[in-house]
Amino acid sequence: MISVAILGNGNVATHLHNAFLKAKNIAVSKINSRELENIPNSDVTIIAVSDDAIETVSKSILDRKGLIVHTSGAVDINIITHKRKGVFYPLQSFSKDTPVNFNTVPFCLETKHKEDYSLIESLAKSIGEKTYTINSEQRKKLHVAAVFVNNFSNHMYKIGNDICEKNKVPFEILYPLIEETAKKAQSISPEKAQTGPAKRNDIQTIKNHLENLNLQQQEIYQLLTTSIQKSIE
Amino acid sequence: MISVAILGNGNVATHLHNAFLKAKNIAVSKINSRELENIPNSDVTIIAVSDDAIETVSKSILDRKGLIVHTSGAVDINIITHKRKGVFYPLQSFSKDTPVNFNTVPFCLETKHKEDYSLIESLAKSIGEKTYTINSEQRKKLHVAAVFVNNFSNHMYKIGNDICEKNKVPFEILYPLIEETAKKAQSISPEKAQTGPAKRNDIQTIKNHLENLNLQQQEIYQLLTTSIQKSIE
Repeated sequence: MISVAILGNGNVATHLHNAFLKAKNIAVSKINSRELENIPNSDVTIIAVSDDAIETVSKSILDRKGLIVHTSGAVDINIITHKRKGVFYPLQSFSKDTPVNFNTVPFCLETKHKEDYSLIESLAKSIGEKTYTINSEQRKKLHVAAVFVNNFSNHMYKIGNDICEKNKVPFEILYPLIEETAKKAQSISPEKAQTGPAKRNDIQTIKNHLENLNLQQQEIYQLLTTSIQKSIE
Repeated sequence: MISVAILGNGNVATHLHNAFLKAKNIAVSKINSRELENIPNSDVTIIAVSDDAIETVSKSILDRKGLIVHTSGAVDINIITHKRKGVFYPLQSFSKDTPVNFNTVPFCLETKHKEDYSLIESLAKSIGEKTYTINSEQRKKLHVAAVFVNNFSNHMYKIGNDICEKNKVPFEILYPLIEETAKKAQSISPEKAQTGPAKRNDIQTIKNHLENLNLQQQEIYQLLTTSIQKSIE
């Protein structure tokens, strides 16, 4: 049996709490990070708060025993003041109302002391399947990469949606293409999956496309076209 | 029974030919577009060649009867010289070696004469399920939107992959995030699905991220961050 205390009230805290409640051999409690008195003892304390609040929360529970971990992709392990510290970073985009299947979520794990690793690994395996040993430097890079594949590709969908709405074309026509693009990046790599006017250097089509865009969209179109062309040189 | 002649040798010609061979009540033949003599008569002739070759092929079969259509997302219907003309545009990214399930492919259809519409609609329904009536102006916009959701989001994956490779982190850690991002754009719209430091205007994280990127990546990061912030103003 592993006992876990989750500090926080956000999406990550809530989804982890729900998952641990259903897990075998896990005793979990969830504590509002603004009411940090009389927290029950636990093998692992998970600080699941916003990035800039992690340090404050860590300092406010200085005399706490056990392993103390945070859940952030962007913050160094050493922000935690305790000696026994780690990172328990589930790499997925969490929304309040969308249920999470942790079996498909990669857990990026790190501990300051080797002896603590198997503890958070067991914790991750109690609700998920995939664990990766990722140190703080690698995690920071992974977090930047995640911004590109998630926030920025989503913004590409947003622009596609804007163009469709403006021209009274249903955006749903593009759903199968979105799916296929996401699948091919995994099955044959993004490099091999690249197609389109930028890759072909189809100057006439690029020119026609630019004429159909607003200034902001044009700027993005041109920069990404240049970047695609540089990447295949 | 509908008889179809496909002119062309590329991916679209090949995948359509294979699909029509398996369809009920379709008699299909495929002709190399450089050998346009003695093509059997057909109800529909599909010019499935590269965008800049459509006009030439159309002019070289001037005395051909029946409905003449092309398969391009970017080219106007009127590039076809014949009176009975149309567009039969399957909106998907076709690769040579990846089999196509046309049941999930949206067919964007247009005919010059109303009376011809049911003919290409039947043709599309013989191999697929989803058909949309899209005129040439709308199709051009849709084609630009497709560049954003396909070519450009794939380039975001490529940059994510580059960052991972450079830092010896397996890119596969990001697969579930790529999947989830593609799904959420469909289930809750890209606008509502947007998260991340740009949306939160998390200046410190943005600064940290920029320090981890090369010049080209920085330029893209900054432009897209600005664009995301403008889009939620």
